[in-house]
Amino acid sequence: MLELSGPPVAEAVYQELQTLLATLPYVPHLRVVRLGDDPASVAYVRLKDRQAKRLGLSSQVDVFPESTSQEELLAHIARLNADPEVDGILVQSPVPRQVDFNAVLEAIDPLKDVDGLTPVNAGRMWMGLEALESCTPAGVMRLLKHYQIPLAGKEVVIVGRSNLVGKPLAALMLREHATVTLAHSRTQDLAAVCRRADVLVAAVGKAGLITPEMVRPGAVVVDVGINRVGQNEKGRDILVGDVAPGVAAVASALTPVPGGVGPMTVAMLLYNTVIAAMRRRGRPTGERLQAAR
Amino acid sequence: MLELSGPPVAEAVYQELQTLLATLPYVPHLRVVRLGDDPASVAYVRLKDRQAKRLGLSSQVDVFPESTSQEELLAHIARLNADPEVDGILVQSPVPRQVDFNAVLEAIDPLKDVDGLTPVNAGRMWMGLEALESCTPAGVMRLLKHYQIPLAGKEVVIVGRSNLVGKPLAALMLREHATVTLAHSRTQDLAAVCRRADVLVAAVGKAGLITPEMVRPGAVVVDVGINRVGQNEKGRDILVGDVAPGVAAVASALTPVPGGVGPMTVAMLLYNTVIAAMRRRGRPTGERLQAAR
Repeated sequence: MLELSGPPVAEAVYQELQTLLATLPYVPHLRVVRLGDDPASVAYVRLKDRQAKRLGLSSQVDVFPESTSQEELLAHIARLNADPEVDGILVQSPVPRQVDFNAVLEAIDPLKDVDGLTPVNAGRMWMGLEALESCTPAGVMRLLKHYQIPLAGKEVVIVGRSNLVGKPLAALMLREHATVTLAHSRTQDLAAVCRRADVLVAAVGKAGLITPEMVRPGAVVVDVGINRVGQNEKGRDILVGDVAPGVAAVASALTPVPGGVGPMTVAMLLYNTVIAAMRRRGRPTGERLQAAR
Repeated sequence: MLELSGPPVAEAVYQELQTLLATLPYVPHLRVVRLGDDPASVAYVRLKDRQAKRLGLSSQVDVFPESTSQEELLAHIARLNADPEVDGILVQSPVPRQVDFNAVLEAIDPLKDVDGLTPVNAGRMWMGLEALESCTPAGVMRLLKHYQIPLAGKEVVIVGRSNLVGKPLAALMLREHATVTLAHSRTQDLAAVCRRADVLVAAVGKAGLITPEMVRPGAVVVDVGINRVGQNEKGRDILVGDVAPGVAAVASALTPVPGGVGPMTVAMLLYNTVIAAMRRRGRPTGERLQAAR
């Protein structure tokens, strides 16, 4: 059973980016906006900031109080949109209840939307146009490509239909000529649907959702789930995916949690930041970067 | 076998719209832009214009020569975007080769994009936000709703992955909680995939693609194909869909071609035009119209 480990692939992405960065006469800048002090958000944002700096990007976290109004947040985003030194803008979710996340997304300049979640980027991606792609789906695709998992003509079943993962991932799989099925909480006989898959992706957020009898022997399984199921004796969160442990005995390849898709999400965020900068500011020759496919 | 006939459903849509129009202090205006004299385009545009006028909308066709430059077309679209009397803008495809259709689409004000093809509307639709929806997929959904075809929890297989039909239709089916499979020219064993469907949609553009053994007995079949397979003795085009005649003996319900999905496309175009006007100009009470779901 092949373990589809994320860190080596993330490192490969970082090496590509370092090579690119060395040719640029500017340092791409990532701005992360966080509201409130939700511990998971604090940890995620710190991780992204640290990794960006480690890569050699410029990175800054703007922290706002939990009580910040939507109006104030939108004004800040407008400033970041207008700032020529800012290449990527990410607003960490979840946001407090007085803020409408979709309204925030729509306010971000699509050329700086490094999370790839604005409607413009989602639509462009679906239409096969140059876009900034949602980080987790893009990370899944890069991971599968690295391990040479065939997709063309294959049955890919995606369990979960979120705007963050399931739906954009369907677009990317379709682009690789897979036959794509989107399943979800209203799917009947989910086990039978999952068993059809050559590549099964779980992106629901429910620990142990995917059990061995739901997996065709020899299938490739991608676990996008991140579920906190308690803390260990040191007080650290125990993280498990959506895929139950027994699946490893059935699948031909499986992404571990942690250490599978998670590291790829951060790598693709930084990839998006560099790409966004190159498209907006140009390469040393003055040419604007076109999307490589 | 239930025939899923389009005209009665289109008429129901027109009656709803006439009721709405009677309450508005303005007449919504649809502007259709046509380049060149491709006979099919001329016919489609004439049909849309005629139907719009019949409904009581204001409608005008702007005809440009085949040789029109992309620059000139974009300038015209900019004028239409800025014109407060124009509620809907549609650019008939195909466009001549010197014009990039996607560039044209991106130039249309999303609030006036009554074809629902701009990236912004495509993205908003995928994200579950208020949008103008692509006419043919929206027409398919309205047709199925009228005939009370159940979708929640059902297996829907869509053959074809175009930006016009297949992909947006997948979003709309997913919104109704179907388990959605997108199949296409690279799908292996297409017949087996199609046989899974409770609702099978053919949107490829290949006459006779879907044969009886590809259809589960009792399935609902939606034929979006429009294929010209010659002319009759009067010189009129013979139109057939993607679904072979024998399927009618296997399916529980089937859309005829012509007279199925086609009439719905025009109805939803005019629906979009009225909706776009109401969102932009408001209702008599001054309120802006929110999307009804």
